Amino acid sequence: MRMYDLIMKKRDGGVLSAEEIRFMIDGYVKGEIPDYQMSAMCMAIWFRGMTDEETGELTMCMAASGDQMDLSGIEGIKVDKHSTGGVGDKTTLVLAPIVAACGGRVAKMSGRGLGHTGGTLDKLESIPGLSVNIMPEDFIRQVNAIGLCVAGQTGNLVPADKKLYALRDVTATVDSVPLIAASIMSKKLASGSDAIVLDVKTGSGAFMKTPEDSILLAQKMVAIGAHAGRRTIALITDMDTPLGHYVGNALEVQEAAATLKGEGPADLTEVCLILAANMLELSGKGSYEDCLAMAKQAVADGSAFQKLHALVRAQGGDDRVLDDPALFGTAAYVEELKAPASGYVQHIDTEGCGIAAAMLGAGREKKEDSIDMLAGLYLAKKEGDPVQEGETLARLYTNEKERMEGAMEKLLSCYRIGAEKPALMPLILAKVTEDGVTRYDV
Amino acid sequence: MRMYDLIMKKRDGGVLSAEEIRFMIDGYVKGEIPDYQMSAMCMAIWFRGMTDEETGELTMCMAASGDQMDLSGIEGIKVDKHSTGGVGDKTTLVLAPIVAACGGRVAKMSGRGLGHTGGTLDKLESIPGLSVNIMPEDFIRQVNAIGLCVAGQTGNLVPADKKLYALRDVTATVDSVPLIAASIMSKKLASGSDAIVLDVKTGSGAFMKTPEDSILLAQKMVAIGAHAGRRTIALITDMDTPLGHYVGNALEVQEAAATLKGEGPADLTEVCLILAANMLELSGKGSYEDCLAMAKQAVADGSAFQKLHALVRAQGGDDRVLDDPALFGTAAYVEELKAPASGYVQHIDTEGCGIAAAMLGAGREKKEDSIDMLAGLYLAKKEGDPVQEGETLARLYTNEKERMEGAMEKLLSCYRIGAEKPALMPLILAKVTEDGVTRYDV
Repeated sequence: MRMYDLIMKKRDGGVLSAEEIRFMIDGYVKGEIPDYQMSAMCMAIWFRGMTDEETGELTMCMAASGDQMDLSGIEGIKVDKHSTGGVGDKTTLVLAPIVAACGGRVAKMSGRGLGHTGGTLDKLESIPGLSVNIMPEDFIRQVNAIGLCVAGQTGNLVPADKKLYALRDVTATVDSVPLIAASIMSKKLASGSDAIVLDVKTGSGAFMKTPEDSILLAQKMVAIGAHAGRRTIALITDMDTPLGHYVGNALEVQEAAATLKGEGPADLTEVCLILAANMLELSGKGSYEDCLAMAKQAVADGSAFQKLHALVRAQGGDDRVLDDPALFGTAAYVEELKAPASGYVQHIDTEGCGIAAAMLGAGREKKEDSIDMLAGLYLAKKEGDPVQEGETLARLYTNEKERMEGAMEKLLSCYRIGAEKPALMPLILAKVTEDGVTRYDV
Repeated sequence: MRMYDLIMKKRDGGVLSAEEIRFMIDGYVKGEIPDYQMSAMCMAIWFRGMTDEETGELTMCMAASGDQMDLSGIEGIKVDKHSTGGVGDKTTLVLAPIVAACGGRVAKMSGRGLGHTGGTLDKLESIPGLSVNIMPEDFIRQVNAIGLCVAGQTGNLVPADKKLYALRDVTATVDSVPLIAASIMSKKLASGSDAIVLDVKTGSGAFMKTPEDSILLAQKMVAIGAHAGRRTIALITDMDTPLGHYVGNALEVQEAAATLKGEGPADLTEVCLILAANMLELSGKGSYEDCLAMAKQAVADGSAFQKLHALVRAQGGDDRVLDDPALFGTAAYVEELKAPASGYVQHIDTEGCGIAAAMLGAGREKKEDSIDMLAGLYLAKKEGDPVQEGETLARLYTNEKERMEGAMEKLLSCYRIGAEKPALMPLILAKVTEDGVTRYDV
């Protein structure tokens, strides 16, 4: 078998066999197939796409390219959640405790990645003392003991994805639906959970800008889950406006804690309850309606918030911050953005908010960059809210004074204020399962 | 400027500017742009194509990437010919002497390349004593003295093409019309001639299998010539059947000499006269009809054959072989292929004939391989000829006995004999100029 022939086959619209895909991924990871052949293949895939069968095989081969987590030591159905990423997305911090409080098993491994704000690991690390570096045996012990653990990846998980993603990133082949789907799902498969709920964000703050593109990606990922024998469903959720009011690491932990106390913003609360209910349903805890009721009850009776306390303590963190946010400390510089006009907030450029947060120090551009845990945004006014000229639109937090001015300017440019009250998007736009797509129209 | 952005632009169907193309080619030749980005770009070009403007700029940048021949020391219009390559293509050996005999200037630089049979340089080197290693000043002196010279490339001509072709060859991006056109024309531009006649072969023995594909390639090349200010025309000629009767190095020299004596096969004679007439027309020697008459006269009066003698002598060769082919010697093993049935030769798989010749030792697979100058084929029967069972179809020549059997079997499989007399293709299918395409229908 020669890589040359496989490139030509894909280029000409052919379908790669399981054997051919295995040859390609194994050879690439071993360094026998050079980058310049793989990048030509990625570009051919960008143009020709891949069948569900091909994408499934690609994902399985990628997942098998390195270590794979063995979670058989955990009793019950292990359920994972993956978000395609957005601005102010702190759902994991809310829904994992809810699911655990209802008897589900959340054994979550996260990568770090780059972004406008830190990932879940960074957010957790804003809690004094908390560690996400957990050995596999401790990881399993913790999930058996309290029902959840959130840890950084250990071992050599999915080296094929690391190598392939780095190549795609410099050859303009990132935005290929089958390659995105295989990248995400290979990590989920290698992480070992039995069931997967995918939160596919759509809108101006997400990778996928339109609901239709998001549904295509969700369908590919659900098909991969089916191919691999993992129960998988996907929700298409709105990321045209930031979720909740806070963007930033410690700020989002505080908002997550408030939400688990029943004091969170309506949009964040609703999305978390629905995602949690889907995770519980896949865990075999009952019908969707029963699971949703259980999730609401876990928030109402405080058991979900207690699970967050238990998680923080189990991982060495000082859980007093959850009750007394002042213990986080405050950023040295806090300034307010005032509304330049009266009217309604018609739109907030969500990706722009992320950039503003990054400008304040909340994210990292390079792996080596450190994060300002206290930096970020409080969006006082969101889409649809009425504002008076001079009223506070948002607060900006940073520990480095020189970061403030540019971020303020950026954030101002993200707000569009006008006379008309805008129509709001529904929070959940669609649900994708093996059986098909259910759309929730406005 | 970033290569990443250029790949994305081309991938999305955009048009690269002259500046962007220069950045890309300069960076690639300098090693600043890595192979894996260039291969992704080549695949994007394979899918999206290039405008004439883009292809023209690409070709100019490639031509400028290394040394460029300065032929200003040669008086008059220098005219070059390029063939896209076929089996038994000895036209250069015939038409260059005709053009020179009529007062044209042929300053021909050839590369070696790989192939079923040797290239023009190899064929010439089958003549005892002849050298194609000629210093630039001698090259110019020879053309001024006798009107023609055929030499191997000196200096570092078009390094961009060498590097790019090697990459395309392993990434399934060779067969992209703009990239083929730029590759061929960059070498022609760097070789310094004022006018170029392209012989684009079409059919089973050629790179381009259909007349329409050949016309597309010809149009691209003619457009590049126009872009670069070089008078360029292309003829689409038939390579569905080998040209002439002989395939092999010394064998083809003998056939070329016979053709210049007016004793050559009709197809080879006709193609050479037409190509020569076009070269003379581009050299400003008169109307096409006048040039064709001049070319015929040069064969009839022996002046063209005398030019071949002059060429061989000027380059140190023993020109007595042109009058007495026995001086070449003969291959140690000569066998005949007999017709397995009676009927008409309906088709000869031309590429297959090339492979059979290579199996006999007439070509090289790797640069280091040596060529058996006496090996090759004599095709006694060609398309349309009637044959009787047991009659000689062809003769095979080699100096290595063990090569005979496989080649014999291969050549037999190339002949299709049937009851019906086949319709023959015209020799010249079309002519492509800046003004458009003229098709010569059967």
